[in-house]
Amino acid sequence: MSQLDAFFQPHTIAIIGATETPGFGMWTTEYLLKSSFKVYPVHIKKEQVFGHTAYHNIKDIPDEIDLVIILVPTPHVLQAVQDAIEKGVKAIIIESAGFAETGRSDFRQIQQQITEAAKSSGVRIIGPNCLGVTNVHNRFTSAETDFTNVRPGNIAIIAQSGVLGNIILDWAFYEGIGFSKVITLGNKADLDEMEILEYLRDDPSTEVICLYVEEIRDGKRFLQIARDVNKVKPIIVVKNGRTASGARATLSHTASIAGDDRLYEAIFKQAGVIRANDFYEMFDIAKGFALQPLPQGNRLAIITSSGSLGILASDEAERQGLVLAQLSSQTEAQMRENAPDWVSLRNPVDIGPAQLAMMDQCLTAVLQDENVDALLWIEIIPERVVNNLGLPLRKPRKIIQTFGMQRGKPTFVTTFTGPRMKALLHQELDKFKIPITISIQNAVRAIARMLQYHKFKAKFSA
Amino acid sequence: MSQLDAFFQPHTIAIIGATETPGFGMWTTEYLLKSSFKVYPVHIKKEQVFGHTAYHNIKDIPDEIDLVIILVPTPHVLQAVQDAIEKGVKAIIIESAGFAETGRSDFRQIQQQITEAAKSSGVRIIGPNCLGVTNVHNRFTSAETDFTNVRPGNIAIIAQSGVLGNIILDWAFYEGIGFSKVITLGNKADLDEMEILEYLRDDPSTEVICLYVEEIRDGKRFLQIARDVNKVKPIIVVKNGRTASGARATLSHTASIAGDDRLYEAIFKQAGVIRANDFYEMFDIAKGFALQPLPQGNRLAIITSSGSLGILASDEAERQGLVLAQLSSQTEAQMRENAPDWVSLRNPVDIGPAQLAMMDQCLTAVLQDENVDALLWIEIIPERVVNNLGLPLRKPRKIIQTFGMQRGKPTFVTTFTGPRMKALLHQELDKFKIPITISIQNAVRAIARMLQYHKFKAKFSA
Repeated sequence: MSQLDAFFQPHTIAIIGATETPGFGMWTTEYLLKSSFKVYPVHIKKEQVFGHTAYHNIKDIPDEIDLVIILVPTPHVLQAVQDAIEKGVKAIIIESAGFAETGRSDFRQIQQQITEAAKSSGVRIIGPNCLGVTNVHNRFTSAETDFTNVRPGNIAIIAQSGVLGNIILDWAFYEGIGFSKVITLGNKADLDEMEILEYLRDDPSTEVICLYVEEIRDGKRFLQIARDVNKVKPIIVVKNGRTASGARATLSHTASIAGDDRLYEAIFKQAGVIRANDFYEMFDIAKGFALQPLPQGNRLAIITSSGSLGILASDEAERQGLVLAQLSSQTEAQMRENAPDWVSLRNPVDIGPAQLAMMDQCLTAVLQDENVDALLWIEIIPERVVNNLGLPLRKPRKIIQTFGMQRGKPTFVTTFTGPRMKALLHQELDKFKIPITISIQNAVRAIARMLQYHKFKAKFSA
Repeated sequence: MSQLDAFFQPHTIAIIGATETPGFGMWTTEYLLKSSFKVYPVHIKKEQVFGHTAYHNIKDIPDEIDLVIILVPTPHVLQAVQDAIEKGVKAIIIESAGFAETGRSDFRQIQQQITEAAKSSGVRIIGPNCLGVTNVHNRFTSAETDFTNVRPGNIAIIAQSGVLGNIILDWAFYEGIGFSKVITLGNKADLDEMEILEYLRDDPSTEVICLYVEEIRDGKRFLQIARDVNKVKPIIVVKNGRTASGARATLSHTASIAGDDRLYEAIFKQAGVIRANDFYEMFDIAKGFALQPLPQGNRLAIITSSGSLGILASDEAERQGLVLAQLSSQTEAQMRENAPDWVSLRNPVDIGPAQLAMMDQCLTAVLQDENVDALLWIEIIPERVVNNLGLPLRKPRKIIQTFGMQRGKPTFVTTFTGPRMKALLHQELDKFKIPITISIQNAVRAIARMLQYHKFKAKFSA
């Protein structure tokens, strides 16, 4: 058992500053009090919160407490931390904002005292200026997560910023992305991403780790830990504050010093960590790792019914160090059966409006071809066709499953259509674990990064 | 009247190869025969098509014909063209594929003969290997466009590829993008993008021109024409085939020679044409031009409730040559009213969970600030909040309208949420012509490109 388990699987929870007033903290209070977790509200004045007995001080609670969530305003936070330590709790989440990120020296000083309290007592603290933790599998959250819109899965996110965590969950639900745990770290007065990385390395419900950081304070330690974790599970990172303007903004966000981006680039590279440019790219790559086998080589096949999009994908493949697979003559012959004269069967395979008739034979042939390591299928069936003919995707998904997954060939589907078609695609492909992206570039990058990770792992297992 | 009007506003149409058999061409035949256009089906054997009298040859039709649509297989296309010329038609669209793009010399030769037939007769031809033309305003289409899913507007697209045109319309509908005309050019045996550009320059229903090309055959002529058109209406271009792999793919797609990308880059730059990296970026930029005023300077203000996303936007702003506006002390004071202590009011303004209470005062103050030339509002209201509180967007849209548009300050809204929130945003913002993007980077790029265009125009009007 790790001490950090108290954050993710607390048996008993106290909420200091529990509130039934609409606004920050109310939703968390209400959700946890109504949940199956054992929760004690603490409020300096109130006798009851949402019908539950409230305690004026955490020390009055007649039970051991695993985890404390602190919601009170800045001037009261240090006292709350000290009370919790006296009570003998294991873990504290401080959600309150108004510390080092404001630039005010008095607030910065309080944060410093919180750090010292953690160090001297051994209690572990997440925050301040964050939303804490969500465990999707046991439905514990300090972060206002609405579980009706969250898909359980094997991707963990570590995010510095609070609001961002929830927004990612909102968006990801409709993208078919499933999560294990979400951790927002805020100003990192005690716990930082390194320890969370180590925790997630050993977490059986997590297979892929997404990390958003604004600052890494100890580059050397990060390099060591990230490389070590990365050997077990891939880490995908978004690091903002790459320019001078961005760097100034990180300072007022979480009091982070963004630092020289070239230094970060070097650290990520040495650690084998995958760097994404934005959140969409991060999660498209994460989907690949979460759902598909790693590619064994760099030979990409592209099947499309829009030549233009096939070219766009070819451009991106070359930029990312992939090559267009040379399809065998057997594959071309297999595809040529029943194909109209005008169809171009060189890779990128462009079957145009013949897609409904030919998709199955093309997928089968290409995924069996020994010259192919990975497949991108750029699906662009117009909504009108779907509405008239129904969805002709049951056979393709079976083929990808049979010939792709079993042979370690990752397959991505990119769709460039309206939301109705996208919803239908998800309905058909999600249960077969076939990732769908709306960006061709991101699908190609995901395959390239999975290959990069395959090579990184091979180096260490050799 | 331009000769090209026959493509967009034909009074009489003949369809050679009209068909009621499911497959390519059926939908166009059926749609046009049922439309209010005067349409004559031509079929070598049939007496009737969809209940309309069919003619065995176009020359048998007892009426003048403006436009011919040719759907027959490659070996019959040249004869159909010659018949149409003898009939004295003004314009021909050849949709059939199977010409130079196949690499076969016999097919290439037929295409060459088509080119010569056009040149010697004076008839104008679009295609082959395309879907022709859609005019959204009068609902003429040779391109299987489903008008129930198309929004009329002021953006025209010229696309080489056929399928792509329809897919763009499918996708764009849900993005709130409105079109005037869509033209797919295919192998460009006669008409190319230059003449279409000139036509669109004079088209009163078009304000912004989006151009997808795989090859420009006469760079000098393109430079001249594009520059000339660009002085009147902005041209946004996606040019694929930038790498060797992509270039090989263009050859089998539309027999295009992609050429040296650096040369294209130089031509686009000299012509003042805006280059986008992909279709999403293209249309996010087009939305800005279609809906918003041009910025008068490079000072960007960012309002967000996620500090992380504010930083991401700041990074992109600097990369694109924009600067973060220094907000005046008056603006900060106006925003500070009723603001909690912990809110960071430096640009990027991060109002966190206080967004519902503070958005109006922030938007008002920032849009009135003389140090601000453009605004990006990164909206990230969680769906749970929206569901509980209703949509608090009526006031913001009014403020953007009042203070942004009237002062020539372009405003973009970026949303990083699920589709329900996105749909609500569109519902509230579309009628006020406020563009919504799902990519922060694209919103920033759109503002930067609009500024670039503003400078380009200023140079010529001086």
